[in-house]
Amino acid sequence: MSTLELLSEHACFGGVQRFYRHASAAIGLPMQFGVYLPPQALAADGMPGAKVPVLFYLAGLTCNEETFAIKAGAQQHAARLGLAIVTPDTSPRGTDFPKQSDHWDFGVAAGFYLDATEAPWSAHWRMESYITQELHALVGQHLPVDTSRAGIFGHSMGGHGALTLALRHPGQYRTVSAFAPIANPVNCPWGEKAFSGYLGVSRHTWGEHDATELMSQHPMPPYPQGILIDQGLADKFLPNQLHPEAFEAACAALGQPLTLRRHAGYDHGYYFIQSFVGEHLAHHAAGLALA
Amino acid sequence: MSTLELLSEHACFGGVQRFYRHASAAIGLPMQFGVYLPPQALAADGMPGAKVPVLFYLAGLTCNEETFAIKAGAQQHAARLGLAIVTPDTSPRGTDFPKQSDHWDFGVAAGFYLDATEAPWSAHWRMESYITQELHALVGQHLPVDTSRAGIFGHSMGGHGALTLALRHPGQYRTVSAFAPIANPVNCPWGEKAFSGYLGVSRHTWGEHDATELMSQHPMPPYPQGILIDQGLADKFLPNQLHPEAFEAACAALGQPLTLRRHAGYDHGYYFIQSFVGEHLAHHAAGLALA
Repeated sequence: MSTLELLSEHACFGGVQRFYRHASAAIGLPMQFGVYLPPQALAADGMPGAKVPVLFYLAGLTCNEETFAIKAGAQQHAARLGLAIVTPDTSPRGTDFPKQSDHWDFGVAAGFYLDATEAPWSAHWRMESYITQELHALVGQHLPVDTSRAGIFGHSMGGHGALTLALRHPGQYRTVSAFAPIANPVNCPWGEKAFSGYLGVSRHTWGEHDATELMSQHPMPPYPQGILIDQGLADKFLPNQLHPEAFEAACAALGQPLTLRRHAGYDHGYYFIQSFVGEHLAHHAAGLALA
Repeated sequence: MSTLELLSEHACFGGVQRFYRHASAAIGLPMQFGVYLPPQALAADGMPGAKVPVLFYLAGLTCNEETFAIKAGAQQHAARLGLAIVTPDTSPRGTDFPKQSDHWDFGVAAGFYLDATEAPWSAHWRMESYITQELHALVGQHLPVDTSRAGIFGHSMGGHGALTLALRHPGQYRTVSAFAPIANPVNCPWGEKAFSGYLGVSRHTWGEHDATELMSQHPMPPYPQGILIDQGLADKFLPNQLHPEAFEAACAALGQPLTLRRHAGYDHGYYFIQSFVGEHLAHHAAGLALA
C-alpha cells in the first residue's frame, strides 16, 4: 500500500478539502486525487466505527482532480449530509508516449476509466483497477471513510465511468448517478475513438465498457433503489455523443428504475452541474441510508 | 454608450450566467465582464418596474471576470434571493506596456480598482471610473437590473476595491462586504507597490484609496446598517498584507457598525469564499430590503 503525500488542505464548510499525491502500483506512476472530508469525518478521525460514507466522483475530458472540487459547489451538501467525496484524476500523467497529448479526447486527461489492453496504453492506462481497487483501498485505510458504504457518480466521460464501474462492480457501489454521461460509447465518436485506441479496433470487448450494453446484459436490476441522471437539453454534445435514450431504453427493458431528468436550457458545463449537484448528493445519501 | 457582445450564456439555478465583451470608453480598450441574472430577472426582462437589485463583485489578484462565477458557488443564493451579480475583470487587457505582466501583483490582473495617475498606466488603468460610472450605467441600461439598488463586495484586492469604492461613493452602493480585504494598503507591501506605480511615490494621494484612512475621514458612519468582513486565520497573507484590525479600529473610532468574523483554519482561497458567500448575499439582500 502506497502512502499519501498531502499536497494542500483547505478548510471548507467546516470540513477540509485536501489534495494528495501517491505512488500508484496500478498505474505505475504518481497519481493525485482530491478528497473532501465533512465535519463529521473530522470528528470521527481516529474513532473506529464512526467513519463517514464516501462518494467517488469521476470527471470528464480535459479535467483533473481539482475540477469538481473547485467548480461544483458540492462541499456544502457533503458537509450537511456527512459524505466524503473522492475526486481522482482523469488519466495517468507523466508518460512520454507519442501523441499522448495531441487530442483532448484521447490520451492524457482522457482515460475513460478502463484498463487499456492495447500498447502503449496498457502499460499505465489502468484507471479501472486504480479506482475500483487501489484508490478504494487506499482511502479506506488512510482516511476516516467507510468504503463499505460507497457511491459513485461522474460527468460526461466520468458519467460513463460511473455507470460502467457501478455496473461492473455492483457489490462495491451502493448508489450511482451521472451528469450528461456518455451512455452508449460504442455508438458515438468519442467512444469509438477511445475504445479503438485503448481496447483495439475489433470491438469484441467494447461492450464490457458500455453502460447501455452492460445494463442489457444484467439478469435483473442491479440498482433497485434507482439511478439518477441529469441531462441538459442545450448540451452541444447531446445529439451525437451522449445517447441517454439508449441507456434509458436498456433500463426500461430490464425494469431498472431510472430517473432521467431532461433540463431545458442547460449545457454541458459546471454551471449545469452546480445547479443539480445538491440533488445528486441527496440521492446518494438516501441510498446510503443517511437521509 | 457602448453595446454589449454576448460571449456565452449558461443556464444556472434557473437563471443565466452570461459573459459579455464591450468597447470601454473609460478604459479605452475592450473589456469583459460576467453577470448572473436570477430567475426573477429573466421573468422581469422587458417589464419596467420589475428589475432586480444588483451586486458588483470585485475579484483579487490574478483573477478575471470568470473566477468568482465558476468558483464561488454564489448563483444558488442569488437565485433564491433574486439578486444579480456583476463580475468585472481585474484590470485592462491588451496593452503592450513594458513589464505589464512581469508581476502577479502589479499591472495586468492587478488594477487595484483606482484611476492611475502615473504614466503609462494612466492611459488605460482607470478601473474606478470604469466600474462606478461606465459599467454601472451599462448594466442598468442593457440588463434587467435596478442600479439604484446596488451593493458591492469583493475578495483581497477586490475587498480593498469594494471597501474603497463604497466609501468613496456611498450614495451609489447601499451595502458592502468583503472577504479577506487588503484593508490598509498604504501600510502593506502589495499596496505600497501598487500605489507607488499607479499613484506615484509621494504618498500624498494614497489615503484617498485606503479603506482604513477613508473610514477615519468620514464625519459619520457611512453604512449605519453595518459592514460584513470575513477573514480566515490560516490566510498566509493575513500577517503582512491585509490588516483588518486597522480597519476595525477605524470603524470603532467612528461608531461604524462592523461585523468582522475571524475563522480558524480558513485560508485565502475560494474554498474559504464558497463557505461564507451565502451569508454575504444574505447580508446584501437584507440591506437592499429584500429579506
